[in-house]
Amino acid sequence: MKSVGINGYGTIGKRVADAVAAQEDMKIVGVTKRTPDFESKMAVQKGYPLYISVPEREELFEEVGIKVTGTVDDLYDEVDIMVDCTPEGIGAKNKEIYKKQGLKGIFQGGEKHDQIGQSFNSFANFKDAIGADYVRVVSCNTTGLCRTLTPIRDLCGIKKVRAVMVRRGADPGQVKKGPINSIVPNPPTVPSHHGPDVQTVLHGLNITTMALLVPTTLMHQHNLMVELENPVDVEDIIETLEKTPRVTLVEAGKGLGSTAEIMEYARDLGRPRSDLFEIAVWKESLNVVDGELYYMQAVHQESDVVPENVDAIRAMLELEDDPAKSIEKTNKAMGIVG
Amino acid sequence: MKSVGINGYGTIGKRVADAVAAQEDMKIVGVTKRTPDFESKMAVQKGYPLYISVPEREELFEEVGIKVTGTVDDLYDEVDIMVDCTPEGIGAKNKEIYKKQGLKGIFQGGEKHDQIGQSFNSFANFKDAIGADYVRVVSCNTTGLCRTLTPIRDLCGIKKVRAVMVRRGADPGQVKKGPINSIVPNPPTVPSHHGPDVQTVLHGLNITTMALLVPTTLMHQHNLMVELENPVDVEDIIETLEKTPRVTLVEAGKGLGSTAEIMEYARDLGRPRSDLFEIAVWKESLNVVDGELYYMQAVHQESDVVPENVDAIRAMLELEDDPAKSIEKTNKAMGIVG
Repeated sequence: MKSVGINGYGTIGKRVADAVAAQEDMKIVGVTKRTPDFESKMAVQKGYPLYISVPEREELFEEVGIKVTGTVDDLYDEVDIMVDCTPEGIGAKNKEIYKKQGLKGIFQGGEKHDQIGQSFNSFANFKDAIGADYVRVVSCNTTGLCRTLTPIRDLCGIKKVRAVMVRRGADPGQVKKGPINSIVPNPPTVPSHHGPDVQTVLHGLNITTMALLVPTTLMHQHNLMVELENPVDVEDIIETLEKTPRVTLVEAGKGLGSTAEIMEYARDLGRPRSDLFEIAVWKESLNVVDGELYYMQAVHQESDVVPENVDAIRAMLELEDDPAKSIEKTNKAMGIVG
Repeated sequence: MKSVGINGYGTIGKRVADAVAAQEDMKIVGVTKRTPDFESKMAVQKGYPLYISVPEREELFEEVGIKVTGTVDDLYDEVDIMVDCTPEGIGAKNKEIYKKQGLKGIFQGGEKHDQIGQSFNSFANFKDAIGADYVRVVSCNTTGLCRTLTPIRDLCGIKKVRAVMVRRGADPGQVKKGPINSIVPNPPTVPSHHGPDVQTVLHGLNITTMALLVPTTLMHQHNLMVELENPVDVEDIIETLEKTPRVTLVEAGKGLGSTAEIMEYARDLGRPRSDLFEIAVWKESLNVVDGELYYMQAVHQESDVVPENVDAIRAMLELEDDPAKSIEKTNKAMGIVG
């Protein structure tokens, strides 16, 4: 039973904590927070030992009666691996600390690939991470692209991918971000960074991306145009995606015609926090015309990378060397059936 | 001075009325309404003779003190051409009435091309409409595509266009439409109808489109990927678009990084209703990679087709046979400098 620490118990951190706690071969020995907010309180209620990341702030936690187990320095001694879920840019700085402590570390997609040195997606390059010390799980958007492009590439080869990513403006709880009533090219330059990010795990893939923000909080939406190397029927693509774990086909004709309806479905599934870990692909959108595959998919930005974090732990701590087996273990423990 | 009637004084109709009234070679002799709402009242205040489209409803107008000049049947006798701006699907039925009356008619993009028989865009196929009896001005999205694709095709040839259209969910005044917090593939099938619609005016263009709705009211946003026939520098494209009428280059770096900021700019321009008749192309987005041009543009869905309606009148009534001259006349009268 390996010991995992979560540095930064926020949007991703709290989800990874629950996912790790659900596994049979790893456990949570501590999570860190810098603010004594509702998340800190709930971490303690769930039984996760709480360590504060800024020692001088211990008083703030005491004042509101939140029990602190120690500081982040104490946590370093307890863990086999730290999953760093701190805000963008902090992870790269923390890497230096982990190095000094002789600790393995997993980072999130907000960090730069070059600063961490290696990126990860369970489907694209699990084996590269076996025994590795520092690995970055690619962002929610990149994870979404890898989930569906990897099986398609394996099925029939890919000449070129063009993707337009319509991104949610903010997460549901982020009340200070926009836009409210606007479409924002983000970045306004083309191509966006998502293509090169996919290439950090799907090496050599020819992919160009454009990205924008829109006023919604629920999911990202991707529009894909994939020139294929070998001719294939749309039925072959459907069959392949249907048997791909963490990908679920949804039908507009059955009431799942939008990101809002898909998240309503996730609520009905009864998952923790009403998350949808799977990438939802609209079945109706799948079409092959002149050797080019078109499809649309939706990505739950708060949760799709969570099972990938669990797989990364397993690869780095050499708990499993077969990606399919790790994916199966993670999914089973998390209740992912898609 | 030719006499123009507007059948349906709503979102498009009221704008076409003002644009026609501003021209030197045509005038508004009447507009029709079926409901005695604020738009009816304002039409009378502006001096447009008001005709009611449902004679039995005359009492409703009398009750609220709105002066009615007659019914739509009376208007038929007054006009050289009718611009039909009635809701989607009604125009095709009205065409039969205009035919019986021996009247020319212009229809909007909501009507089906096959039912009207001929479609129109000032840049793509003005000359086809010279002397024509029935012409459909293509939709706001299609007009936006034609405005920028026509000069690019003329400059360097186009092998294939892929476009993803991120459409506003509703117009600013449409309080009953959604979505509020969702991204809606619309249609969920690929390709969307926009490609074939472009082909009704840009004959033979190889174009595939995908479309969705997002929760915003201000503008549509288009993401274009254009495989070019002949090599060209991005500077050549910029120069071409800069000299294309009704296209304006905007820069995110100068505070115009979103549809909201572009419409704020339109408000500062002092145009009627704060409309932006031009297609706004983000300068930073223009890029040529491996013979493929990428760009992003924004389309003011309520107004971009308005100058096209004026040009269509001029072509059909043979007031002008040179598209460039008609465009120049229309633009000058409407204050379009982009």
